[in-house]
Amino acid sequence: MTDITTPPFKNILITGAAGALGAVLRDSLRPYAETLTLSDRQPLGEARENEKLVVCDLADRDAVFGMMQGVDMVVHLGGAPRENTFQVILDSNIVGSYNIYEAARQFNVKRVIYASSVHAIGFYECTQTIDANVPQRPDSLYGVSKTFVENLSRYYFDKFGLESVCMRIGSCFPKPVDRRMLATWLSYDDFSHLCIRAVMASSVGHMIVYGNSKNSANFWDNTEAAYLGYSPQDSADSYRAEIYANTPVPDPRHPAVRYQGGQFAADGHYEDPNAN
Amino acid sequence: MTDITTPPFKNILITGAAGALGAVLRDSLRPYAETLTLSDRQPLGEARENEKLVVCDLADRDAVFGMMQGVDMVVHLGGAPRENTFQVILDSNIVGSYNIYEAARQFNVKRVIYASSVHAIGFYECTQTIDANVPQRPDSLYGVSKTFVENLSRYYFDKFGLESVCMRIGSCFPKPVDRRMLATWLSYDDFSHLCIRAVMASSVGHMIVYGNSKNSANFWDNTEAAYLGYSPQDSADSYRAEIYANTPVPDPRHPAVRYQGGQFAADGHYEDPNAN
Amino acid sequence: MTDITTPPFKNILITGAAGALGAVLRDSLRPYAETLTLSDRQPLGEARENEKLVVCDLADRDAVFGMMQGVDMVVHLGGAPRENTFQVILDSNIVGSYNIYEAARQFNVKRVIYASSVHAIGFYECTQTIDANVPQRPDSLYGVSKTFVENLSRYYFDKFGLESVCMRIGSCFPKPVDRRMLATWLSYDDFSHLCIRAVMASSVGHMIVYGNSKNSANFWDNTEAAYLGYSPQDSADSYRAEIYANTPVPDPRHPAVRYQGGQFAADGHYEDPNAN
Amino acid sequence: MTDITTPPFKNILITGAAGALGAVLRDSLRPYAETLTLSDRQPLGEARENEKLVVCDLADRDAVFGMMQGVDMVVHLGGAPRENTFQVILDSNIVGSYNIYEAARQFNVKRVIYASSVHAIGFYECTQTIDANVPQRPDSLYGVSKTFVENLSRYYFDKFGLESVCMRIGSCFPKPVDRRMLATWLSYDDFSHLCIRAVMASSVGHMIVYGNSKNSANFWDNTEAAYLGYSPQDSADSYRAEIYANTPVPDPRHPAVRYQGGQFAADGHYEDPNAN
Amino acid sequence: MTDITTPPFKNILITGAAGALGAVLRDSLRPYAETLTLSDRQPLGEARENEKLVVCDLADRDAVFGMMQGVDMVVHLGGAPRENTFQVILDSNIVGSYNIYEAARQFNVKRVIYASSVHAIGFYECTQTIDANVPQRPDSLYGVSKTFVENLSRYYFDKFGLESVCMRIGSCFPKPVDRRMLATWLSYDDFSHLCIRAVMASSVGHMIVYGNSKNSANFWDNTEAAYLGYSPQDSADSYRAEIYANTPVPDPRHPAVRYQGGQFAADGHYEDPNAN
Amino acid sequence: MTDITTPPFKNILITGAAGALGAVLRDSLRPYAETLTLSDRQPLGEARENEKLVVCDLADRDAVFGMMQGVDMVVHLGGAPRENTFQVILDSNIVGSYNIYEAARQFNVKRVIYASSVHAIGFYECTQTIDANVPQRPDSLYGVSKTFVENLSRYYFDKFGLESVCMRIGSCFPKPVDRRMLATWLSYDDFSHLCIRAVMASSVGHMIVYGNSKNSANFWDNTEAAYLGYSPQDSADSYRAEIYANTPVPDPRHPAVRYQGGQFAADGHYEDPNAN
Repeated sequence: MTDITTPPFKNILITGAAGALGAVLRDSLRPYAETLTLSDRQPLGEARENEKLVVCDLADRDAVFGMMQGVDMVVHLGGAPRENTFQVILDSNIVGSYNIYEAARQFNVKRVIYASSVHAIGFYECTQTIDANVPQRPDSLYGVSKTFVENLSRYYFDKFGLESVCMRIGSCFPKPVDRRMLATWLSYDDFSHLCIRAVMASSVGHMIVYGNSKNSANFWDNTEAAYLGYSPQDSADSYRAEIYANTPVPDPRHPAVRYQGGQFAADGHYEDPNAN
Repeated sequence: MTDITTPPFKNILITGAAGALGAVLRDSLRPYAETLTLSDRQPLGEARENEKLVVCDLADRDAVFGMMQGVDMVVHLGGAPRENTFQVILDSNIVGSYNIYEAARQFNVKRVIYASSVHAIGFYECTQTIDANVPQRPDSLYGVSKTFVENLSRYYFDKFGLESVCMRIGSCFPKPVDRRMLATWLSYDDFSHLCIRAVMASSVGHMIVYGNSKNSANFWDNTEAAYLGYSPQDSADSYRAEIYANTPVPDPRHPAVRYQGGQFAADGHYEDPNAN
Repeated sequence: MTDITTPPFKNILITGAAGALGAVLRDSLRPYAETLTLSDRQPLGEARENEKLVVCDLADRDAVFGMMQGVDMVVHLGGAPRENTFQVILDSNIVGSYNIYEAARQFNVKRVIYASSVHAIGFYECTQTIDANVPQRPDSLYGVSKTFVENLSRYYFDKFGLESVCMRIGSCFPKPVDRRMLATWLSYDDFSHLCIRAVMASSVGHMIVYGNSKNSANFWDNTEAAYLGYSPQDSADSYRAEIYANTPVPDPRHPAVRYQGGQFAADGHYEDPNAN
Repeated sequence: MTDITTPPFKNILITGAAGALGAVLRDSLRPYAETLTLSDRQPLGEARENEKLVVCDLADRDAVFGMMQGVDMVVHLGGAPRENTFQVILDSNIVGSYNIYEAARQFNVKRVIYASSVHAIGFYECTQTIDANVPQRPDSLYGVSKTFVENLSRYYFDKFGLESVCMRIGSCFPKPVDRRMLATWLSYDDFSHLCIRAVMASSVGHMIVYGNSKNSANFWDNTEAAYLGYSPQDSADSYRAEIYANTPVPDPRHPAVRYQGGQFAADGHYEDPNAN
Repeated sequence: MTDITTPPFKNILITGAAGALGAVLRDSLRPYAETLTLSDRQPLGEARENEKLVVCDLADRDAVFGMMQGVDMVVHLGGAPRENTFQVILDSNIVGSYNIYEAARQFNVKRVIYASSVHAIGFYECTQTIDANVPQRPDSLYGVSKTFVENLSRYYFDKFGLESVCMRIGSCFPKPVDRRMLATWLSYDDFSHLCIRAVMASSVGHMIVYGNSKNSANFWDNTEAAYLGYSPQDSADSYRAEIYANTPVPDPRHPAVRYQGGQFAADGHYEDPNAN
Repeated sequence: MTDITTPPFKNILITGAAGALGAVLRDSLRPYAETLTLSDRQPLGEARENEKLVVCDLADRDAVFGMMQGVDMVVHLGGAPRENTFQVILDSNIVGSYNIYEAARQFNVKRVIYASSVHAIGFYECTQTIDANVPQRPDSLYGVSKTFVENLSRYYFDKFGLESVCMRIGSCFPKPVDRRMLATWLSYDDFSHLCIRAVMASSVGHMIVYGNSKNSANFWDNTEAAYLGYSPQDSADSYRAEIYANTPVPDPRHPAVRYQGGQFAADGHYEDPNAN
């Protein structure tokens, strides 16, 4: 099932471990570390063998520095998972990620695998095929925060040698449910495989890799990251008929149809639903 | 067999429908439209259910405007299919295509799928791998007319928002019969699949896509059009031994061998065989 | 004044010689040919010494072939100078230019210098700097016809070795009169100099060169054509204050402001002013 | 002296107006606005005619929104001018700039001219010539914050149409004083000229432009921004002999010599000099 | 098994035929020539039917010219197979290859297939994906000699029309045995297939192609050589678990891990083990 | 006259110092070193103050190592200056340059400035504008040897950190004398200036720079080397009329006219004029 026999890492930290993607990695990264440290603001359930659970806010510097001791590999999924107020984005995604990177530097962590997003480049049109070197074009404050961490991680590599793989994840769900996901869908298995390749690669320097499955429809040229050996096995293609049947013929000029970021690119300024 | 359950379009027009490629689409596009309008200068046989047949010359503006009423999608295959006198090329390919595009604009057609050709770029060498953004290099007056329509369609999109997919078709025949077709062959099934992807894609803007099957030998980088989700299933490779046995070892310096356009690139100025 | 002592060419043909640009070249190309053949549909005045005047329509094949005898260099300015009906564009620019090129081939003319236009690429945004290899993006039927001749001339070079320089002329007027011309202006002297460089260059193959003066504001990267040695001496910069004073602050989102083609990119479909 | 006769703008805001560059623009932008609003955390001296002075912290949202009322053009120089603690960078450069952009959006400001920096790309080697499309490579947290605003401004343009020119300023000082500045120096006059071009250009969309004088030594290909018409007049070259005489022969492998960011790229993590 | 029925070539010469790769081709190229000439400095065993054996040093001009008579296709594997003293590299790889090319020119050989190497570009980092057009970056004197022959063969094509395919072979061994070979491994079958494609292609001009199997991990973009129709069937992926189990976790900053050339890039200047 | 006051280098070696270019540098580099070591196979005349003269063959390893002791900067002009037999090219240019580089490595020389040539890329067409990253295309065995040293110097930098500037010199003569030199001419003053910039630049890594004067006609994009601050002052333009008067109208299809290498690209295989 896995491609190793003994855990190559002492302690892998997964942030945002209570989310759906975190749950996937909680299983699949298990054989790769002697200890799996799991962190989230939400409860993480029962600790399994060799797991260490930390409930904390990533914006809490002391908490982050505390849990990073002894960690030699980080998979950083934590933060606000979609558009929000600037204050929330600032605290959860910008300050939180800074804390992760600064702690990683101080504790000589080997590498950080970061869950970036299609929304870092969501304003490219769907008809454009882009590689990892195009200028960022975020489609939301959320997307802007993803570009912030991509650049922050570049800085930490260029200056301090801290390696990072930034995964620009498309749509990671159990199955694709709209026409855009025929291109952007990333299956849980492929996501898991991509993370393992990023963790296990001999030398990554600072890389940006796109995360989608082996879909015929595709926005992204992943050639730049070929060295990782990421080889997706699933495909959105088998859901095409179902999706065509369940979704209306789209208007090609609507921003949510034209742009890679989909609805994020179409939404206006975020209005806090809890504001009054 | 198809990937839809109800026809997404009211009326798809196929021009050049009496030709071999037209016959292929007459079958495969059937489920995608409530009405299939078929046009050609040649007889089109019996109309099948939901078909509308129009025998006309595309250079006849009134005839074109007449048959375009109610059409919401066009697959434009019509015109002279190979090198000819300038006058024939002018009437059939240049004036005829202008009529199609101008009618499409006036009747708010959603999209035109245009059968461009390898001969629009036939003077690139076989050893060059080209994408859809290279400058056009036509190998014949026929090829020049293909570049004319590619540019005309770009204009209609940039100014009026009329979408187009220009398919640079290689060698669309029942099977590959010479060494060049090991690279350029497009099977009928793959051609059909490509047209369906072009018709069904959510948003295409103005795209140029190369049309060949999944041949190991290949001149073209189709990455730019990856979004369409075109995924060819056939390959010229299985005909390799047969072709090697039946064709002599080629002279690598002969224009028909060196250039992607093959014999078109080698032929001199077209001499009208009927002239006296 | 000129850089030669004896005329290097026997007979230079200038088409469109009755226009403003034709008048410029009628003077400046004089020393470069033993005979200067001047053609236009409009009267050309009195023939000066060593001039040969031909009033004809370029769509008239016999007339074109007649005047091309003995010509060894062509500067082809003739044709409709701005947007018009498709029929006028077809006759004047497409058929007319075909006649010129086909005659040039048959009479072994050494080279054709062709007056292409910014309108061949008028739908690029002003903030994009483009070189001669970008895909054409015409802003009008006029612009489409310019791309037709660019591609036709490429074909004539690739197949028959007939050399061409296609000059994508910006705004060639006595002086710049609007803000866009701060970038696109081409002075008469610089135009003249560019034509002489194109005529005199040792080997040009098939080249596309942008034609504007040494303006600080610029849309075009002319590096590809550096070999010609075109070195503009005039600049629109000295007219900046005058233009700023005489023109309103523009709306940056208006098509005539956003696109390199200016007003051509903003105009709708051409309505024949003489139609009824 | 200026190239206009009447002020084209109602109210230009200059942030960071108390600094050296602010003082330069306070003079040179004067003729371009009916009112010049000047803001800084430091005192701004006496208000001159048509000036409006606002002493405030840009991290103070209400203060920013208050002073932005009626503004139609912003030149945003404000923020921490060099490396500092993450908290200072966060407040002054990230939150402060967000406030500027969000207010600009809400008040329909026409355009923001932003003082980005060489430190946004400071980890490119001096021997690399880069244009504005290369991936950002910040050399400091300060540099990371510059990339944040570049991306934020891209988002505001792509989604809301708010135009920006991001000027990646090299070394803007009275004169160059070390060997690296032979390439990066930007004279005050050229800086002023660049800002005026950015303010006055008809349409800028979202642009990134490098800011240095006409130095023979150069790291940057500014072709992408040629449309602005920025045409520097000063040069570091005349200071070469003086600089050679006053500075030791450098070690080519030292980070401060190898990288475009100079000393910023060589410095370690910022240690707060006031911490204890 | 093969894709031909009668030998298309009269006499194929394989240099370096006594080595492991030579042995592979000795079998697989057999059906493609009436005579197979095999050369090496080492003994070549018994001649099989239709084989001609020549034991000689390629630096021996007369020997090379002697055996090249009647040859119409060369697969040139001969020379020092790894780093050595400059004198050995000079004699075996530089002088030897010159003799092969000059003889090929004089005897009108149709094409030379040359075994270049990853070490011609061994100083690119593993995280860089490179195509065949990047500047060479040899990692050893051995690699420098490979670039010499690549350039020599380009010269022979540009000036004399002698075609070449330079195969930059990765790690051609029975199976991959370290982590780097997960990307660079070329199976014997795929090597054989690549050579046949290079020999049989209609027109190759001068091409550079990378030689590795269908490994998920990959440094090289082989698109430029797609025309050859090379379609590898083996993959290093199935050896991944075994390799992970048998090799330690690598240090990502060690030159042998960072660079595509592996250990060659890490080794210092070659010290002759036989020197005293 | 110079831009320094005290010599920044202890001992600059100029190889090929008896040639015309060597004589130029013998004067102009004088102020930059305490000692100027001059080497050639030809007599070097009287030693001037602070000069050290060495008459030797660069293929003589011991002689080279002897004269390199104490040298901290090399300008390497020595070797066969044009096409010759392979044996001469091998000894003078390949072995000789290897000796220079290997000695430079062993003696910790800071940098080598190498006189490469247009003939390293002489098979590009004159109508192509190339930068320093295009694949080499030598036009002669002489040109092949220039590419050898370019690649050798890259290796010495990548592995040992020994810096090099390879100057691809066009036509360095007292004045341009044919039409091709309107593009390729490099004046002695500009050559001298380029060498000084290469010697004095803070950090060069491994650079390739084209060497021609400020000619309007130009084949080369020197942007990549902008950091050096090379700013030519002379121009072939002022010789244009004289050259046009003295040289016939060229045939654009002749190899010596079409290719950047000029006559080198047209010459056949070198026949030793002294052979019998």
